[in-house]
Amino acid sequence: MIKFSINKVAFQNALKITKQAIGSKVTIPALTKLKITVTAEGIILTGSNGQISIENFLPATDKDAGMNISGTGSILLEASFFESVVSQMPELTLEFEELEQKQVLLTSGKSEITLKGQDAEIYPRIQEISQENPLKINVGFLKEIFTETVFAVSTQESRPIFTGVHLVLSDKKNLKAVATDSHRMSQRLLALENDGSDFDVVLPSKSIQSFKNVFTNDEEDLDISLANNQILFRNERISYYSRLIEGTYPDTNRLIPNEADYSLNLVFDVAALRRTMERARLLSNATANGTVKLTVSGDSVITTANSPEVGSVHEELTAIEKTGEDIAISFNPQYLIDALRVIKEPEVRIRFISNVRPFTLLPKNDTDSFVQLITPVRTN
Amino acid sequence: MIKFSINKVAFQNALKITKQAIGSKVTIPALTKLKITVTAEGIILTGSNGQISIENFLPATDKDAGMNISGTGSILLEASFFESVVSQMPELTLEFEELEQKQVLLTSGKSEITLKGQDAEIYPRIQEISQENPLKINVGFLKEIFTETVFAVSTQESRPIFTGVHLVLSDKKNLKAVATDSHRMSQRLLALENDGSDFDVVLPSKSIQSFKNVFTNDEEDLDISLANNQILFRNERISYYSRLIEGTYPDTNRLIPNEADYSLNLVFDVAALRRTMERARLLSNATANGTVKLTVSGDSVITTANSPEVGSVHEELTAIEKTGEDIAISFNPQYLIDALRVIKEPEVRIRFISNVRPFTLLPKNDTDSFVQLITPVRTN
Repeated sequence: MIKFSINKVAFQNALKITKQAIGSKVTIPALTKLKITVTAEGIILTGSNGQISIENFLPATDKDAGMNISGTGSILLEASFFESVVSQMPELTLEFEELEQKQVLLTSGKSEITLKGQDAEIYPRIQEISQENPLKINVGFLKEIFTETVFAVSTQESRPIFTGVHLVLSDKKNLKAVATDSHRMSQRLLALENDGSDFDVVLPSKSIQSFKNVFTNDEEDLDISLANNQILFRNERISYYSRLIEGTYPDTNRLIPNEADYSLNLVFDVAALRRTMERARLLSNATANGTVKLTVSGDSVITTANSPEVGSVHEELTAIEKTGEDIAISFNPQYLIDALRVIKEPEVRIRFISNVRPFTLLPKNDTDSFVQLITPVRTN
Repeated sequence: MIKFSINKVAFQNALKITKQAIGSKVTIPALTKLKITVTAEGIILTGSNGQISIENFLPATDKDAGMNISGTGSILLEASFFESVVSQMPELTLEFEELEQKQVLLTSGKSEITLKGQDAEIYPRIQEISQENPLKINVGFLKEIFTETVFAVSTQESRPIFTGVHLVLSDKKNLKAVATDSHRMSQRLLALENDGSDFDVVLPSKSIQSFKNVFTNDEEDLDISLANNQILFRNERISYYSRLIEGTYPDTNRLIPNEADYSLNLVFDVAALRRTMERARLLSNATANGTVKLTVSGDSVITTANSPEVGSVHEELTAIEKTGEDIAISFNPQYLIDALRVIKEPEVRIRFISNVRPFTLLPKNDTDSFVQLITPVRTN
């Protein structure tokens, strides 16, 4: 039966990671549990919500954990409750001892807490993924391309394929991430340092959120493996599994206009344009179609929004660069705000074709590695 | 018609205070508005939710406000929306100009926002309170006695009188604050430096919360005036009105036991006892009656809680002082946690009569200025 002592803080930190995969809204009751497996090598904390699963390994040799294992085994404990109990134990060292009938005695200082556990046999098995020839990729890069695209996914469950980010590896090292909700699109291209086997998958946006919470060291590299509609991100301790969204993602390359089609090219300061749109949004939110109008006429660039009930906004913008024809185009300012939020360069290039065709955004000094697209709204 | 320019940050800070009184859930639509009154002397921002009302005066002479008034008058604007617009204006200076038909033009840099306002005549009048001979009291003291009592009010609207804090001034300078939800009670006595006219009122707990947000300078003194079931707290700029709860508050003095009745006296470290109760609460929350048991037997003091479904806790406590008889008493640990949270001294004296009579808490070196009382739960 399990018996070990451990540093409370190290144990808490490990629990916190595994808990990212454990939800309260699960269809299988066993999935509200944390699975603790103790071997001579260390402790494995497993959690899953059916969509994502995390196995977190704490090696017995970890100095911060000050682990002392004197009995091995496996048990299930109510995850949230167990985490609360551990976090409130009084001393820095925690003793964990399995008693008869799947009970667990936690001791710390003068405090003794007995918890009812369950047989680990009832816990669903996590599908194994072959880890041969994984793709190696830096955590920081992955988070960056996720951030640059995930905001554009659809929140409508009616078309599940659009609720994820499309990730494609082609020619062994050309990674593409793209997301669209059919009103706007964000596409990021990245040439990887390491080779991998080509893939074409759609990762749920929810998995991307928890991914960021689990892998917090931007400097490290992860191994990525794929199999049977699952993806595995793995470092030395943590195996993070996510289901993929089934189906075929449409070809988004055809949505990006040809250079020759653009009739107007503007460059703005990203922060200034974003603040203007945030002010315009206050008024556009109160209008029927939720739009703001951008009017380019000669050297003048003006943003307007008008709500008959609430009021109106009128603001002159400074274009750092302007070439091309005049335009008057209406769109949802929220899409532009979201798009500007993920542009790290100080200036953005926006190019228009006409007031009924999507317009594109690029960081000013970029040509094609990070393209965003926003569809205008036709107004009278 | 109104016309002025003002420093955006100073104006925002003033708006933030008045907004404490403006709620979205109000029965009179005019109360979702902010009333702006501009005179040659300065700007008055008025807000009210029917229960509390705030008049906030920004004098024209305030240097931080950099005010320039060129037109006076009064107007109503949608409070939340106006606050959002002001906070998002681009430059540090804001121009406010009333146009025809109760429209307001806000200008800052190149941004122009027009808002629809309403006639200030439709705004309810705030009842005036005579400010002769007010009681002067320090903000820090007031907040302290509010904090020490307000947590014990009842949340049950069925007995409104218990949802407030009972404030009594007797013999011109003896202030008493008391709150109870019939399971626990907290009573604070304070001898004031200044004289006032005796009063006996019940202040709603909600008003106490917003009071703390409005008066942030603990060093200053406030004037307190009373009339017609209203209380007014006032400093040089802010007048904060609150309705009082009608009815007669029961005599709580009779609940406090006589010294001679106590059979057991214990002294604990406040923080250690609180953490023990927090651990016990994890288990007691999962029990039918939600209690923890304290067992004093000879030199041993033990806390236990037992949930047949979840598990149990068993913890030995260190009493710094112990005189009297043994006891085994059950109670809701939340009440003890709440009580300990407001005791600033490091040690607490807890005295018991029997396992069916309320027990009292005092900061160890206190005799009667801050008494708390908790009723035990009878268990089998």
